[in-house]
Amino acid sequence: MDINKVRIVEDFPVPGIKFYDITTVLNDADEFQRIFKELVEAAKKMRPDVIIALEARGYLFGPALALALNIPFAPIRKKGKLPYKTYQESYQLEYGMATIEIHVDAIKPGQRVLLFDDILATGGTATAAINLIQKFNPQAISVLFFLELAALNGRAHIHNAEEIQSLAIV
Amino acid sequence: MDINKVRIVEDFPVPGIKFYDITTVLNDADEFQRIFKELVEAAKKMRPDVIIALEARGYLFGPALALALNIPFAPIRKKGKLPYKTYQESYQLEYGMATIEIHVDAIKPGQRVLLFDDILATGGTATAAINLIQKFNPQAISVLFFLELAALNGRAHIHNAEEIQSLAIV
Repeated sequence: MDINKVRIVEDFPVPGIKFYDITTVLNDADEFQRIFKELVEAAKKMRPDVIIALEARGYLFGPALALALNIPFAPIRKKGKLPYKTYQESYQLEYGMATIEIHVDAIKPGQRVLLFDDILATGGTATAAINLIQKFNPQAISVLFFLELAALNGRAHIHNAEEIQSLAIV
Repeated sequence: MDINKVRIVEDFPVPGIKFYDITTVLNDADEFQRIFKELVEAAKKMRPDVIIALEARGYLFGPALALALNIPFAPIRKKGKLPYKTYQESYQLEYGMATIEIHVDAIKPGQRVLLFDDILATGGTATAAINLIQKFNPQAISVLFFLELAALNGRAHIHNAEEIQSLAIV
């Protein structure tokens, strides 16, 4: 992938933060195809039975990956959005707590799970998502990111994953 | 599509409301493929140059449609989520107001735009999205839904669309 296609927005969401804006990649049809092909190749090697992605930017690639691999997809959402029975997991944010949920029938026991999210920063959200997925007793969990911010060392904070892969590392 | 694959959850998000839960469709790989094929066929006939979808459930199909048609994708998000310069549109909800945004470089003037969302209810969100898209002076706007709730008559409230289509109407 061409990392220069990702737009860097300074001081978003707060002063001093460099935000990696992937909308410029999605808005370039050729680059979008290239990136997606790379994600599909990486996902196939993880041999998943089901793909899980995080609201909202994880959905920009997660369902398309499930379609390309011809496997099911299930969303993790922020608290209160999923209508059916859910498992919940709360985790610490910089300020306060967040809670994410998954439907109790999202994953079958013994499945190989691929968790997708767009950006690996501190690893806090991915860890909460892995904790949720573990409630299903999966055979294995692999994690795939579009972009990894190496300086935040998120990879070191993710446990219980068979594999962690990022398409690009900055 | 097989409408029986959509799970109806009673009394969500509030008592008296029947919620159409599409996660059961995404979690059935065969049905997910079938539905997606139908959406791709419908989208192709609209001859779009770009696909726009609404946060968050619109992303479950919107980006995959753009990949299938080999055209760009751009997200509409809730206020404060998009990092770059945006256009904004506020609209009335049952209680209070909501504001949605789109990046100012999401659409090129003269493009044919396909707006995708999962469910057409009252048409309020779709109307706000169309108002946003019109700021770009597109050639035409078509709107594609996965599911339309006919009783709410949302279709009658959507103006300035060349075409409005739903895969299923209940």
